[in-house]
Amino acid sequence: MPDYRIDDLQINNLYLKQDKELFCFGTDAVLLANFALPKKNAEVLDIGTGNGIIPILLSAKCHAKKITAVEIQSPCARLAEENVQMNKLNDLIEIVHGDINNTDLFDKEFDYITCNPPYKKNGSGIKNPTSAVAIARHEITCTLDGLIKRSSDLLKDKGKIAMVHKPERLSEIIYLMKLNRIEPKRLQLIYAREGTAPCLILIEGAKNGGEELKILPPLYIYDKDGNYTANIADLYKKEK
Amino acid sequence: MPDYRIDDLQINNLYLKQDKELFCFGTDAVLLANFALPKKNAEVLDIGTGNGIIPILLSAKCHAKKITAVEIQSPCARLAEENVQMNKLNDLIEIVHGDINNTDLFDKEFDYITCNPPYKKNGSGIKNPTSAVAIARHEITCTLDGLIKRSSDLLKDKGKIAMVHKPERLSEIIYLMKLNRIEPKRLQLIYAREGTAPCLILIEGAKNGGEELKILPPLYIYDKDGNYTANIADLYKKEK
Repeated sequence: MPDYRIDDLQINNLYLKQDKELFCFGTDAVLLANFALPKKNAEVLDIGTGNGIIPILLSAKCHAKKITAVEIQSPCARLAEENVQMNKLNDLIEIVHGDINNTDLFDKEFDYITCNPPYKKNGSGIKNPTSAVAIARHEITCTLDGLIKRSSDLLKDKGKIAMVHKPERLSEIIYLMKLNRIEPKRLQLIYAREGTAPCLILIEGAKNGGEELKILPPLYIYDKDGNYTANIADLYKKEK
Repeated sequence: MPDYRIDDLQINNLYLKQDKELFCFGTDAVLLANFALPKKNAEVLDIGTGNGIIPILLSAKCHAKKITAVEIQSPCARLAEENVQMNKLNDLIEIVHGDINNTDLFDKEFDYITCNPPYKKNGSGIKNPTSAVAIARHEITCTLDGLIKRSSDLLKDKGKIAMVHKPERLSEIIYLMKLNRIEPKRLQLIYAREGTAPCLILIEGAKNGGEELKILPPLYIYDKDGNYTANIADLYKKEK
């Protein structure tokens, strides 16, 4: 029997149902939804949406025309659909069960793409490569290379992509973006606390954009006492 | 008449003579000399050495076999030579007056390259493109592209390059490094003070190195009271 939990997202009365056996959302999804800046009436695409956390958070933070969210794993896609319905967001968010590598999947281009991809390369250390959690964590169904190439194809001219990833993949991401005509424009490094190396990066690139990267001030998750910093506590409060 | 000043570098009784009409060294050179980690007995090359600040600081911080320092501007090269002699470092440091783009300049490859290049593109806003300060600040005699290509040619297999640059050029640097088989390995962002965007970046790449970037904790120059932070005050004290 699936083991579910329902979380209050603490914004706009949004809730999220999660299956504990699947990949549950974390700080990275919240950080990405906050970092992403789709313009009013944008056509937004969320790649690898999981349980739908990013489009649901984005619904409260931007005034997109439509948010399309694609997910390759059917149990996740079903859960994402349930979450959209539970939050009465059917008019705004469309969940698509499919493979982003399938070029017939969409007949339109997007203004903004968000993506919280698998962080790890598809190495030999994976015990069960068909498990939902392995597919969410490892590049089994989609490599970084393939993801960025495909995103470039799916973006309108000057359209943007925002990703969250691990710091050790930063140079690969920048290189692949530039190879695929996506110019890195904004970068923010996330630190668990002061004095440590970063634990996550947020990066936004613009298709055919001009060359100039803006690096934002660092974002610390915890203060010295182990509590959320004011910046993190404010994430949910900010209306865009 | 040239207007000189002599600075005590506060380490190993090293001094530096500077011409106030030429480009005087700044925090960036000190940060780069501290960030660079040439191994014992390394053959080191400093590109665009100016008055010789980086090789002179490196002399106190590493046990290189030889530090070659190249400078295209003759008044700077002469001053660098004077500084080497004043500090009795003739056995360790060789100043070469020449153009790094000249492939006949060196008949050997290096273990470690340091470079504090011009930060600005060669745009139309330059009043006097032949002035020493313009050449030190703008990409007049050497572009970032040319510099990284040439550095790759001059490095031994697994040899490393450390650069200081402006944050807005980070993605260009990473892209050009990877195009030229230099893998970014260490990155540190420098901030004037907490809560601001970074003012400088330090980056080290390894020729034919494996793919994995380590991002170090941020380095703040000033504390809230406008004094140097302990990290900066320690720069000169650290013996490597």
